[in-house]
Amino acid sequence: MEIRIIKGNIISAPEFGKLDITENGYLIAAEGKIRGIYQKVPQEYAEHPIEDYGDALVMQSFADMHLHAPQYPMLGMGMDMPLLDWLNTYTFPTEACFKDNEFARKTYHRLAQELAAKGTTRVCMFSSIHREATLILMEELENAGITGYVGKVNMDRNGGKDYQETTEESISETIKWLDECNFEHIKPMLTPRFTPACTDELMQELGRIAKEKNLPIQSHLSENTGELALVKQLHPDCDQYWETYEKYGLWNDRTLMAHCVWSDESERKAIRDAGVWTVHCAASNENLVSGYAPVRRMLDEGLNVVLGSDIAGGDHLSMFKNITAAIRASKARRIMDDWKTDFLTVEEAFYLSTSAAAPFFGEKPGFAPGNSLHAIVVEDESLPMVRPLSVEERFERCVYRREHGAMLAVYSEGKKIYG
Amino acid sequence: MEIRIIKGNIISAPEFGKLDITENGYLIAAEGKIRGIYQKVPQEYAEHPIEDYGDALVMQSFADMHLHAPQYPMLGMGMDMPLLDWLNTYTFPTEACFKDNEFARKTYHRLAQELAAKGTTRVCMFSSIHREATLILMEELENAGITGYVGKVNMDRNGGKDYQETTEESISETIKWLDECNFEHIKPMLTPRFTPACTDELMQELGRIAKEKNLPIQSHLSENTGELALVKQLHPDCDQYWETYEKYGLWNDRTLMAHCVWSDESERKAIRDAGVWTVHCAASNENLVSGYAPVRRMLDEGLNVVLGSDIAGGDHLSMFKNITAAIRASKARRIMDDWKTDFLTVEEAFYLSTSAAAPFFGEKPGFAPGNSLHAIVVEDESLPMVRPLSVEERFERCVYRREHGAMLAVYSEGKKIYG
Repeated sequence: MEIRIIKGNIISAPEFGKLDITENGYLIAAEGKIRGIYQKVPQEYAEHPIEDYGDALVMQSFADMHLHAPQYPMLGMGMDMPLLDWLNTYTFPTEACFKDNEFARKTYHRLAQELAAKGTTRVCMFSSIHREATLILMEELENAGITGYVGKVNMDRNGGKDYQETTEESISETIKWLDECNFEHIKPMLTPRFTPACTDELMQELGRIAKEKNLPIQSHLSENTGELALVKQLHPDCDQYWETYEKYGLWNDRTLMAHCVWSDESERKAIRDAGVWTVHCAASNENLVSGYAPVRRMLDEGLNVVLGSDIAGGDHLSMFKNITAAIRASKARRIMDDWKTDFLTVEEAFYLSTSAAAPFFGEKPGFAPGNSLHAIVVEDESLPMVRPLSVEERFERCVYRREHGAMLAVYSEGKKIYG
Repeated sequence: MEIRIIKGNIISAPEFGKLDITENGYLIAAEGKIRGIYQKVPQEYAEHPIEDYGDALVMQSFADMHLHAPQYPMLGMGMDMPLLDWLNTYTFPTEACFKDNEFARKTYHRLAQELAAKGTTRVCMFSSIHREATLILMEELENAGITGYVGKVNMDRNGGKDYQETTEESISETIKWLDECNFEHIKPMLTPRFTPACTDELMQELGRIAKEKNLPIQSHLSENTGELALVKQLHPDCDQYWETYEKYGLWNDRTLMAHCVWSDESERKAIRDAGVWTVHCAASNENLVSGYAPVRRMLDEGLNVVLGSDIAGGDHLSMFKNITAAIRASKARRIMDDWKTDFLTVEEAFYLSTSAAAPFFGEKPGFAPGNSLHAIVVEDESLPMVRPLSVEERFERCVYRREHGAMLAVYSEGKKIYG
C-alpha cells in the first residue's frame, strides 16, 4: 500500500471562515486518500519515509471552477474593453485559432504545466468549439496531473463568421466528442457558451444530452448589464436570465454558473433552490467593469459559491491572486452597500477557493479523511521580521504575496505533480 | 563624455493618456541626461557601443511617491483591519523596532535592492521617528542608486507608549537629522505623520523649519472616515482636514498629500489652488477599505495626481501592480459614480506612475531631452501567441502581468543600477 507522509505546518479550511492548523504536523495519505492529520506519526506508519518540508506551509490545493483554456494566449490584453466588444475583438478571434491542433497542443501543454506549478489541481474549464482541440486539452491536463471537468464549447449564433458552428455541427460534434472522451481524472461537462450564443434548438438538445448521459453543465449567468439586455431581447418569454437555462433542463445541482454579478434576490433564490453553483470571478469582473457580485449576501442566503480565475477576463491563473481579488471585490461591495455587508476575510476567501468546491467533486471540506490528497507546500517569503510570525500571519502573507518560486510541491489525487 | 545608447522598443508617456513608441529605436543619453530618441544612431554617436536589448520594451522607470520604509517587514499582514486599528496593532509596533540600527541596516538594504530590481528609481518615502535609522535608509537608497526624498517621521501624540516622541525631541532630532543629511541623490523632506499624530506646537515648528530651510513636505490627508472624525475633534476650528496643514505653513506646491480619498470638491479646490500633490494609493485604499479616491474627477479639475505603493497598506512594491490597482480602483469608482466617470486606461495610469511625478523632481514628462535617464528594460512574457502582438499590446500585457525576472535592466540618473 502506497503511504505518503507529508511534514510541515498543516493548514486547511474545514469550515467557512475557520482554519485548522497543526504546527509541525503530519498529513498522511494511503493509496492517494487522506487518512488524517497527526501531531506524531502513528505507529502503523512508522516504517514509511517522511517527506519533510520543515517549517513550510502545507495547505489544500486550489479548485479553479471557471476558466477558458483557449484564452490563455490573450492574458492581460484588451482590459480596457467592455464584455461584448472584448469578446468580438479579442476572444473569438483567439479561440478560433484552436482549429489548429498543433497550436492547441503547444498552448495547452504550457497551460497544464502552469496550472500544476501554481497549485491548481482541480478545474472546471471551457475549451473552444473544436472537438479535437478539446480532446488535446483533456489529455494535456490529465498528463499534468490536473483533475476535473472540461467542456467543448457550444455556440451556434453571435460568434462572428470565423467562430461559430451550425446547430447540427454543434450537436454532432458534441456527441462525437463525448464518445471519444476516455480519461481517468478529466471528465466531460456540457458547455453552452451562454444564452446569447446558443439557439433554442441547441439548448434543447444539450438539455436532452445532459439528462440522457447524466452530465454536469457549465455556462455564464448575469455577468454584465449589456448581456442582460441582449438575453431579454432573445427570450422575451423569460422574466429572468436563469429561466433561459431552466427551460431547457440545464439548471440543476450539477450546473455551474459563472459570475451572477447582477442576479437579484429572485434569481438568487432560483439558484439556491436548484442547488446551482455560483462561480465568483472577481478579477474578471473588475477588469471588464462588469460589477461586483453580492457574494456575502449569496453566502448568507445559502448559495454554493466557489471561485474562478476566468482567464482571460481575469488576468492571472494563480488562485492566490484570485483569492485576494475576491477579498478586494468584497471590500468594494461593502462600500457600495453603504458599509452594511462584511467583506470576505482571508480565511473565508481561501475556503471558497478550496473546500467550497469539494462537494462538487464528491468530497468533504478540508483535509477530511477519505478525501483524495490535493495539497500544496509553500515556502515563506524571506522578508526581514521584527518578531516570529504565527502560522496564521504567515498564511495571510502567503495568500497576499506568494508568487513564482513559492511552491515547493503540489500534490493531486495523491501524486506529486510539481516540485 | 559618457554616452549611453540603449536599443529596443522605446515607450514613454509624454502626455497624459498618450504613449510615444519608437520601434527598434535608440534612447541616447550623455553624462546621464537624455539627448533624444532616434530611429537611427546619429553620426556623432557612431563610435559609441550600443546596449542592445533586441525586441525588449524600454520604458520610463517608476516614481513611488508614497511608501513607508519601516513597514516593509509587515507586508501582506493585518489586511482585515481598518486603518486606525491596523496602525496600533501592526504598524506602530513594527516601526518602533527601527530604533535598532542593525535591524534597520539589514531591512533597508533589502528594501533598496528590491526597489531597484522592480524599476522604482524615484521615491518620496516615510522613515520612522528614528533619526539614525532614517540616515541609514537614505544611505542604503543612495547606494542602490535610488533617488528622491526621505523623511524622518514626526509624531508626538497618539502613537502609543513605545512609539512616540516628545514635542521637544521631535523638533531637536529633526534639526539634527537635517544637519546630518548629506547625500547626492536622496534629499530630506519634512514628514509630520498626519494631523492626529502631531500636536499644534509640533506642526507650527515644522512649518517654520520648512520655510526656513525651503524643504518639501509629505503627509496624509482624508484617507478614512474614522480619521476624518478624529481630526474634526482635534481641530474644531478647522472646517476641513486640509486646513490643519495650511494653518501651520505646511500646504504648498512642494507638499505631497497621500490618499485624499474623502477630499470633497471644496478640499480638492484647496489642493489645486495651492498646487499640492495628491498621491493616489489604490492598493492600500482597497486593502484597508478606506474608499475609492475620485481620481478622474481630480484630474479633470486640474489636480496633480501621482501614484504611491503605500506599503504596507499596499501589499506590493512593484509599480506595475500599483498601476493595475489604480485602474481597478477607477473601475470601481466608475460603478459607484453610476457609470458617469471614465476609468483610467493603461496609458493614463502608466503616466501617473512615471511622467506625472517628473515636475516634482524638476523634470519634463516622458523621455524629454534634458531629463535624467530613468528607464527600465522589460522582457516579454513567453506565452504562446496566435499572431504577432503590437508594441501597445505588449505594453499592456507587461503592465498587467510582469513580475519577477521580467526586468532586464534598470537605469537611474544615467547609471545602470540593476541587470
